[in-house]
Amino acid sequence: MPQKPKPTPDASRRSEKSRQAIYAAALALVGEAGYSKTTIEGIAARAGVGKQTIYRWWSSKADVLMDAFMDLGDQAAQAAGQESYAIPDTGDLAADLKMVLRATVDELVDPRFEVPSRALAAEGVVNERLGAEFVSKLLEPQLQLYVQRLRAAQDTGEVRRDIDPRIALELFVSPLAQRWLQRTGPISYAYTDTLVDYALYGLAPR
Amino acid sequence: MPQKPKPTPDASRRSEKSRQAIYAAALALVGEAGYSKTTIEGIAARAGVGKQTIYRWWSSKADVLMDAFMDLGDQAAQAAGQESYAIPDTGDLAADLKMVLRATVDELVDPRFEVPSRALAAEGVVNERLGAEFVSKLLEPQLQLYVQRLRAAQDTGEVRRDIDPRIALELFVSPLAQRWLQRTGPISYAYTDTLVDYALYGLAPR
Repeated sequence: MPQKPKPTPDASRRSEKSRQAIYAAALALVGEAGYSKTTIEGIAARAGVGKQTIYRWWSSKADVLMDAFMDLGDQAAQAAGQESYAIPDTGDLAADLKMVLRATVDELVDPRFEVPSRALAAEGVVNERLGAEFVSKLLEPQLQLYVQRLRAAQDTGEVRRDIDPRIALELFVSPLAQRWLQRTGPISYAYTDTLVDYALYGLAPR
Repeated sequence: MPQKPKPTPDASRRSEKSRQAIYAAALALVGEAGYSKTTIEGIAARAGVGKQTIYRWWSSKADVLMDAFMDLGDQAAQAAGQESYAIPDTGDLAADLKMVLRATVDELVDPRFEVPSRALAAEGVVNERLGAEFVSKLLEPQLQLYVQRLRAAQDTGEVRRDIDPRIALELFVSPLAQRWLQRTGPISYAYTDTLVDYALYGLAPR
């Protein structure tokens, strides 16, 4: 996160406005031009701030983008009425997973999220360092929420004890990710609901 | 596939040699420089053939690359002692799926395959037309082999009749694809074996 100065109320308002303008500019540019053509200079010009304003808070364009994406995720969660960084636990695992995956569908098809996310994901596929940062800062913390929810379900007996939750979550998260990333099929609530049911109850007869 | 002239035996040998050189050059260039910087001119120069030789058989660099990848897939299948384009049916679905996924692991970590495949996959994430071609020509035909194998398993009672095989296959294929594409975790035989077991028997107690 950016190192913020301790500002006066007015300066704080100005800082916050600059920060939001910088995030918006970074996301717009990476979506339009791709990661390799996005520069700190370009972000500064589009945000209407000096380059030094950006360098005061971040050391690289990758850092700006990571924070911009984290902020975008927080906003999406708030708009959906969810707490950021929590999967509900109503005691019904299937219902909770379906709810969260439906919210993820909404986010994935929202152009504000989709266009910059695709640009960053594409770069991460070929740029190992950026990909690793993307995973460790943005993706893995989200996946760990599923790990926690599945562990709780192991405690209540909804999931078998011998299951590795970190692998288990991939049975419903990765299909959605691949359909979105590689456009291998349509994305819908019915689809993610089906993934949850198949993952929990299996393909073989019971 | 390239439109081949009806050649004399000698001309045919020369054509085949050129075709292989063009494939190798196309795969090497896309892996080194990325899709957008790969050109027909560059492929021709590296393959030691004239530009017109390439244009005689293909109309775009995307077409050359698709054929090069299909050829690479055929070679990998032959090297693994498999028939191209078939999933074995020994009557034991879990064993058959584990075998094919282990062979896929071998292919994904082979640099000859990995480097150009990453470059093409990354471009497909942001280039919708190329992505669609990649999916329809290369990925979906492979996924349909799993559909066929799962249908056979529905006939023998190993998979429930009410399962949609096209979605079901994603429970074990997509996690491997995401770990490979986004480097979200290590890839191993133990991992893909686990995916098959979780998908077939489910996460919930039986």
